Amino acid sequence: MDRFLVISSDTHAGPPTERYREYLDPKYREAFDADVAASEQLIGMRRELIDSAEFEEQWEQETGDGGKQASWDPSARNVELDREGIVAEVIFPDADVLGGGASAPFGAGLGSSGDLDGELVMAGARAHNRWLAEMCSDSPERRCGVATVPILHDVDDALLEIQRIAEDGFRALMIPTLWRSQPAYNDPRYEPVWAACADLGIVVHVHSGGASRDITAERGLVAIYATEAWWWAARPLWVLLWSGAFDRNPSLKFALTEDGAWWLPGVVKRMDEKWVGGHNTAKLGDAFRQNVSRRPSEYFGTNIFVGASTPSREEIERRHEIGIGAFLWGNDFPHPEGTWPHTRQSIRDSFFDVPEDEARQMLGGNAAALYRFDVDKLAQLAEKIGPTVEEVHAVAIAGAD
Amino acid sequence: MDRFLVISSDTHAGPPTERYREYLDPKYREAFDADVAASEQLIGMRRELIDSAEFEEQWEQETGDGGKQASWDPSARNVELDREGIVAEVIFPDADVLGGGASAPFGAGLGSSGDLDGELVMAGARAHNRWLAEMCSDSPERRCGVATVPILHDVDDALLEIQRIAEDGFRALMIPTLWRSQPAYNDPRYEPVWAACADLGIVVHVHSGGASRDITAERGLVAIYATEAWWWAARPLWVLLWSGAFDRNPSLKFALTEDGAWWLPGVVKRMDEKWVGGHNTAKLGDAFRQNVSRRPSEYFGTNIFVGASTPSREEIERRHEIGIGAFLWGNDFPHPEGTWPHTRQSIRDSFFDVPEDEARQMLGGNAAALYRFDVDKLAQLAEKIGPTVEEVHAVAIAGAD
Repeated sequence: MDRFLVISSDTHAGPPTERYREYLDPKYREAFDADVAASEQLIGMRRELIDSAEFEEQWEQETGDGGKQASWDPSARNVELDREGIVAEVIFPDADVLGGGASAPFGAGLGSSGDLDGELVMAGARAHNRWLAEMCSDSPERRCGVATVPILHDVDDALLEIQRIAEDGFRALMIPTLWRSQPAYNDPRYEPVWAACADLGIVVHVHSGGASRDITAERGLVAIYATEAWWWAARPLWVLLWSGAFDRNPSLKFALTEDGAWWLPGVVKRMDEKWVGGHNTAKLGDAFRQNVSRRPSEYFGTNIFVGASTPSREEIERRHEIGIGAFLWGNDFPHPEGTWPHTRQSIRDSFFDVPEDEARQMLGGNAAALYRFDVDKLAQLAEKIGPTVEEVHAVAIAGAD
Repeated sequence: MDRFLVISSDTHAGPPTERYREYLDPKYREAFDADVAASEQLIGMRRELIDSAEFEEQWEQETGDGGKQASWDPSARNVELDREGIVAEVIFPDADVLGGGASAPFGAGLGSSGDLDGELVMAGARAHNRWLAEMCSDSPERRCGVATVPILHDVDDALLEIQRIAEDGFRALMIPTLWRSQPAYNDPRYEPVWAACADLGIVVHVHSGGASRDITAERGLVAIYATEAWWWAARPLWVLLWSGAFDRNPSLKFALTEDGAWWLPGVVKRMDEKWVGGHNTAKLGDAFRQNVSRRPSEYFGTNIFVGASTPSREEIERRHEIGIGAFLWGNDFPHPEGTWPHTRQSIRDSFFDVPEDEARQMLGGNAAALYRFDVDKLAQLAEKIGPTVEEVHAVAIAGAD
């Protein structure tokens, strides 16, 4: 095939908020109305804090409706995927982060955390998962929905939901990025979750978005948030790894999505150094080998994957340090910080000098294997819409003249 | 001069714990006894968690007493400084982190945070600062003590202590790394502290050591701590910067000590990208310029300094990215993760290929200017004990043969 089979490891979907109502268990519908009102207040506060009116206007002008229809309508969605050269997608919640109009109920989306009401957030998660299963039943070969499962409050309840979503055909789920007041992910209470996901072949995700609430609003909150957000989402990676979760569950797969990868080689190199042992950590005894049998970097590509949405050139250039087998490209559709509606151009700009076999892995091969897409089915579509090798490498070829 | 004038920007000192008693205001002496007992319990718990008995035995064999005497006795201290080729030092609390026997009272040392009792931690800080002023009065030209000032609980009280330590001749202070339950450092309540330090020419420090308490002990706690510690200490850097503290107080100097520098170019580059503005952050409006008039990297070497204790070769090689004018070498004496008692060798291994003028800046010139050491006085000593340029560059010269 002279075209790339491209899978976006990071897209977002959700219906207009009020439509979640019908997917909620009836007893939560009253609470839902209050939740929607509270969300609207929050959106108002956000607008006080961030003056993005001008940007929003430009964005709607450029994209028509900012991707709103395609956020929930599978046909509209396929049109955008086709236009962008993408055959399949891994779908997270919260499509409309600008307007805040498509967030999973009761905070069950990207901002899910340990400080929420456990019963309500689980109800919200179930509603989103039901809606998402339905959306993914249209062109199912193109979709891998990521169920949201708040595991922090009631592990037994979470295990029931994991069983249920597996029966609904989900191959991926997302856990809250921030445990906040609940025990961290190294705590043994979560062990049955990791075991269940390993057994069921469900890839566990965290996705950036949440952050600490300990920064006051008056000075620099948004800038501090934007500087720190990567770290809050990265944290579960080393907490899980050092806890030995991947050693106790060798088939457990974990992916860190839309969290950049620029920081990863540096952090993992220090973890390796500690594991190997040396002067700086000698006083800490055998702390690094107690639960972990391999060098931390060795878990990348077997257990740990990096949903490196809209990678920078620096990240592309450091792909071997990040791990070619762990690198999952994504376009973050329909978020405005993603590459939509210019993904074809962005792929050319990013991959123009990446050898074809490596680009194939990063743009779709790794994701196909990890999320168990049926590549035979997708290949037919890729042959029609995928970016051609010639097109992606055109700059390099031109440069060689 | 054919020798380097070497200043360690990171050493530690403290008397044996019980000696703090006499430096405490009398009314806190009873509470102090309870605090010592509680600390001993903590040390016991630490020994349960970290099996370092073998290491400690080796360490004492190698060093005699692990640096205990030199932790508080200025004469013994000068012997070690001379032997290591170091003319002057910037002195933080908590000399004996292994045994836990020389920690400032009531948690006022490296672990100071917002969760402590405000009155007690201030009493402990005053006791340490009095002791430290006394120790620094021996060979004062060689010492820059770093007073510890817990600013989180009562800012007025902190301002009184800042005034007092300035009168005692201190040119540096350390604030708690972790605010925990108190407002973060972007909060306007701390503004008088930054203003006072700027006016008095006192360099504000954070020093690594503290970390979040949200990781449970059972699995991987020590490894997770060691992986994260840099971040908790780094956090005040961008919180202060984005809050605009350096713009409102252009003469404010801030140093981040013993926190590595490997992560710094990556983090600062992203801060620069956000400040310059671009696709990824367009939706956040003018959040990055509201309080900050220059590109974040431009504050390094003028307002922000990096106490890069025992730098790795990678950090030395990336010195221009970190900022030659911001880079402060240190040996972390007498901590076992530092280079003592092999600092001369370590300087050769680290700086063998660094041009002389750059090495002079990093090894002592930057610290001399920042901490206002009297270099004329120190030069005489450096001419006797400082590592020679020839000795440091010997490997490179030999390599060039």
